[in-house]
Amino acid sequence: MITSQSNPRVRNVVNLRKKAKERSAQDVFLVEGIRMFREIPKQLVKEVYVSEHFLAREENRLENERALRAVGVPFEMVSDAVFEKMADTRTPQGVIAVVRQLHYSFEDLLGKEASAPLLLILENLQDPGNLGTILRSAEGAGVTGILLSSDCVDLYSPKVIRSTMGSAFRVPFLYTDDLHGQIRQLKEKGVRLYAAHLKGTKQYTQPDYTGPCGFLIGNEGNGLTDATAALADDYIRIPMQGRVESLNASVAASLLAYEALRQRMLLH
Amino acid sequence: MITSQSNPRVRNVVNLRKKAKERSAQDVFLVEGIRMFREIPKQLVKEVYVSEHFLAREENRLENERALRAVGVPFEMVSDAVFEKMADTRTPQGVIAVVRQLHYSFEDLLGKEASAPLLLILENLQDPGNLGTILRSAEGAGVTGILLSSDCVDLYSPKVIRSTMGSAFRVPFLYTDDLHGQIRQLKEKGVRLYAAHLKGTKQYTQPDYTGPCGFLIGNEGNGLTDATAALADDYIRIPMQGRVESLNASVAASLLAYEALRQRMLLH
Repeated sequence: MITSQSNPRVRNVVNLRKKAKERSAQDVFLVEGIRMFREIPKQLVKEVYVSEHFLAREENRLENERALRAVGVPFEMVSDAVFEKMADTRTPQGVIAVVRQLHYSFEDLLGKEASAPLLLILENLQDPGNLGTILRSAEGAGVTGILLSSDCVDLYSPKVIRSTMGSAFRVPFLYTDDLHGQIRQLKEKGVRLYAAHLKGTKQYTQPDYTGPCGFLIGNEGNGLTDATAALADDYIRIPMQGRVESLNASVAASLLAYEALRQRMLLH
Repeated sequence: MITSQSNPRVRNVVNLRKKAKERSAQDVFLVEGIRMFREIPKQLVKEVYVSEHFLAREENRLENERALRAVGVPFEMVSDAVFEKMADTRTPQGVIAVVRQLHYSFEDLLGKEASAPLLLILENLQDPGNLGTILRSAEGAGVTGILLSSDCVDLYSPKVIRSTMGSAFRVPFLYTDDLHGQIRQLKEKGVRLYAAHLKGTKQYTQPDYTGPCGFLIGNEGNGLTDATAALADDYIRIPMQGRVESLNASVAASLLAYEALRQRMLLH
C-alpha cells in the first residue's frame, strides 16, 4: 500500500489532475469514481488506484471488486489520506484510473454508421461543466462527432470527464488548430453548417436537419467570432422570451442537437 | 472607505454569502458584478459595496458610475483586499449589492398575462449551476413560474444568482414544504403535469403543451421520487441514443420548456 504523498506515482497522478500539458505529454487522463470506471473501455486502462477503505465498504463490495478485476490491470492500494490528495473531488469515491487518451480522425467525426453526419463545432468554449454536458447531450441526440478549436477547455480535465457521465468514451471528438480549414473541409463534404446567431431570422426549428449538418457553438460570454460565424451556411435563432439575451452554451447546443434528432426520428 | 475585515458590515456580507439561513433571516441576498447589478429592480437594492479600484478603471467608467448612481442608494467604498474577502468569485468584479428577496404567491406562478400557465416543478435539485441555468432557460421559454421543493439548493446562493444572468429577478418562483399539496392544487386548476420518466412511452414531442401544463424535474442523481412521479398526469420520454441513461437536469428542463414554446409559437 502506498502511504506517502511523495511517492512518484502519487505525484504523477496529482500532476495529471492539474496540468493539461502533462496529460497531453503522457497521452493519458484520469477517471475518478466507480461509476465512471465501469464506462472505460478496458483496453485503455493503464493504472488503477484504490483507496484503503474503498473495498472495506459493505455496500456493493462484490460488484465493485468484480468491476476492478474486469479491467485486467492490477490495482494499487493507497492510504485514504494520500488518496484524498490524488482525487479531484472533495468526497473522493475511492477509485482513480489513469486512462489512455482517445484519438479520432477527421473522418471519425462523420459517423460511418449514421444515416447522415450530425456535428457540433465548438469555438473557444471555456466552462468544463458546459463541455461535459454538451458531450452527454451529444451522445443522447446521436451527434456523430464534435470538432473543437484548440482554445477550448481541455476535454480531459477531471471536471469535464466527470460531467460527461461516460459519453467522453463514446462520442468522437477532435481538437484543431485550424478550425476554419476544417470547417471548409466539412462544407466540401456536403455538411451544411448552421450558426445560432443574433443575425438569424429563421427559427431553429425551420431548417431541414435530416441531411448532413452541423451547428457552430461559440464562447459562453462572447459567442462565435465574426470570422467563424461568416463560414456558416445559414443563421438560425433560438427564440427567447422575456429579457433573455442568450442561453447557456450547453443548453443551446442541446436544443439544436435534439431538434435535429426530433426531425430525424420523424423520418423513421 | 472600509479597510478592515472585521468591520461589521463586511462580516455581515461574508455571512450572507456563505449562509442560506442568514440570507433567509435577513430576507436579502447578494448580487455581484456590474452586469448583474444592472438587472436588479432598483427598489430592491439595500446596500452597495464598490471596490477601491473599480471606479478607477478607465474601461466603461462613466457607464459604471451612472449604473451605480441610478439605484439611488449611496455606495460604500471598500479596499480591494477587503472586497476580495466579501466576494464569491476568484476575480471579483468590483460591485456587490445586498438585495431584498423576492416574494411570490402561488397565483404568481400561473402568469396572469400568459395565454396559458407553463410551470417547472423541481424536486430536490442540488446543483447551483443547474438551478441557475434552469431559471435562464425558463425565462427564455416563457415559463410562467417555478415551484421548488424546500430541499432544493438555495436559489439565493451566489452561484445560482450568477448563472441565472438576471432571470432570477424576472421568473416567479416559490419554495414549498408541501410539494405534493401544491401539485394537487395545480392539477385542480387544470394544469396538466408531465414527468420525464423511464416509464414514459410517449416521446416528449407528442403531447399537446399549448394548454396549461407543467413539467416535473427530479434530482440530478436519482430523478423524481416515486411518490412525486405518481402525481404526474402523463409520463414522457426524451429519446436517448448511444448509452446515455439520462441528460443533465438543466438540459432536460430546457428541452421540455422549449418544446412547449415551439408548440405555442406554432399557434400564433
